[in-house]
Amino acid sequence: MARIGIFDSGVGGLTVQRAILDALPGADTLYLGDTARVPYGTKSADTVTQYSLRTARFLTGQGIDLLVVACNTASAVALPALRQALSVPVIGVVEPGARAAVAASRTGRIGVIGTPGTVASGAYQAAIRVLRPSAVVTARACPLFVPLAEEGWTDPADEIVRGVARRYLEPMAGEGIDTLVLGCTHYPLLKGAIGAALPGVTLVDSAETVAAEVKAMLGAADGREGEHRFYVTDAPERFLAVAGRFLGRPVESAAHVDV
Amino acid sequence: MARIGIFDSGVGGLTVQRAILDALPGADTLYLGDTARVPYGTKSADTVTQYSLRTARFLTGQGIDLLVVACNTASAVALPALRQALSVPVIGVVEPGARAAVAASRTGRIGVIGTPGTVASGAYQAAIRVLRPSAVVTARACPLFVPLAEEGWTDPADEIVRGVARRYLEPMAGEGIDTLVLGCTHYPLLKGAIGAALPGVTLVDSAETVAAEVKAMLGAADGREGEHRFYVTDAPERFLAVAGRFLGRPVESAAHVDV
Repeated sequence: MARIGIFDSGVGGLTVQRAILDALPGADTLYLGDTARVPYGTKSADTVTQYSLRTARFLTGQGIDLLVVACNTASAVALPALRQALSVPVIGVVEPGARAAVAASRTGRIGVIGTPGTVASGAYQAAIRVLRPSAVVTARACPLFVPLAEEGWTDPADEIVRGVARRYLEPMAGEGIDTLVLGCTHYPLLKGAIGAALPGVTLVDSAETVAAEVKAMLGAADGREGEHRFYVTDAPERFLAVAGRFLGRPVESAAHVDV
Repeated sequence: MARIGIFDSGVGGLTVQRAILDALPGADTLYLGDTARVPYGTKSADTVTQYSLRTARFLTGQGIDLLVVACNTASAVALPALRQALSVPVIGVVEPGARAAVAASRTGRIGVIGTPGTVASGAYQAAIRVLRPSAVVTARACPLFVPLAEEGWTDPADEIVRGVARRYLEPMAGEGIDTLVLGCTHYPLLKGAIGAALPGVTLVDSAETVAAEVKAMLGAADGREGEHRFYVTDAPERFLAVAGRFLGRPVESAAHVDV
């Protein structure tokens, strides 16, 4: 079975790894969270590209057959540089997310939410328009969603959570979108509140589409249980404290690496 | 007149520079915001110390007579390493903030709010207890305050701002504190909402105490207007977009540096 490298700016990419393991339980994985430099979403494209190259090179140095860039911001700005620098295939989350959104939308009015970096890059907007040139795409950065998810303040009945979701999303409801791309790996934890602010809108989480793509490239699992290693660039304690919640299974250890 | 180096993880340290310039208008300043690695507040002490050493060495390399560590997290964890590594005097914000809090408190029940890194370090708690061993100190991390300040959501009448401030601070009101240290350079922008959640409590912002200490070390200004240079480790655009609001005067340019 192939060995899959998965890289993210922090812990959020574990939601993508979770979808991959659900689809391919036999795969071996190496996960790297660049927790010393997180978040990428507020940084410039150049800086994110530099960080992405360093972290990706660490993973290819460990021997991987495929690299999944789970971070939306890195997928949005660094994919060409990564593909040029590396010899293994590189899969990002933007293109699969755009495909899922176009497939789900009847009206072609599609919303995208993400970090300031992802939204400013225009990557989702461009990827959607390539697939459906008539699509009308509205994008919005939602910087408070990540700290809300990390605080564990995700209950749609919580007035702060509801208030923040409404403030960010009501303008999109007004524009009549029928599909919304959750363009940040933290946002699926807020699905309840996001859905409540946008009744009747289909929420697209690219993790499942990415997992299907990985499975299509690598073939079916061979029945054995895969092996999983975790690396972080900051001290592991904080990562380990929340990793299980994001991955949906226990994460017992993570090694600190300098990249 | 002396040349003062001021370093912060990002833009927040400009509130400290503002207090210094109000006290010493003739001083020359070099400001470095480590915007490629911001925030420090969620990272481990080791990582913050490494970043602090690199950024401080850049400033001493440019020729400064005094270094002000405006970042609370770096002040809390990296000061001993910085003082050992550098030959210029180093002033942090924690000790001056603790002194101001002890001077302001009548009951000795003092609250401290800051980033997770600052609170976990215990630096404010220890500095307060050195000055008043009988003090009862309660500390709490408030991770949503920084993104609220950066979004410009600071109006105490805003129900989200009010709700977040209440959730973090009501437990402290219950403990009967009479003084609260704003242990993060972003928090003074939320003074209105913080004060409304804690009626009758004195809010301590260490910027003024730091400025008084700098003035005491360097003497009075000589009447001329100082020169100010700004450096950032990420692309300057985002820094320049908000810097004026934090400094209280225009910031026209900032140079990108790799440190």
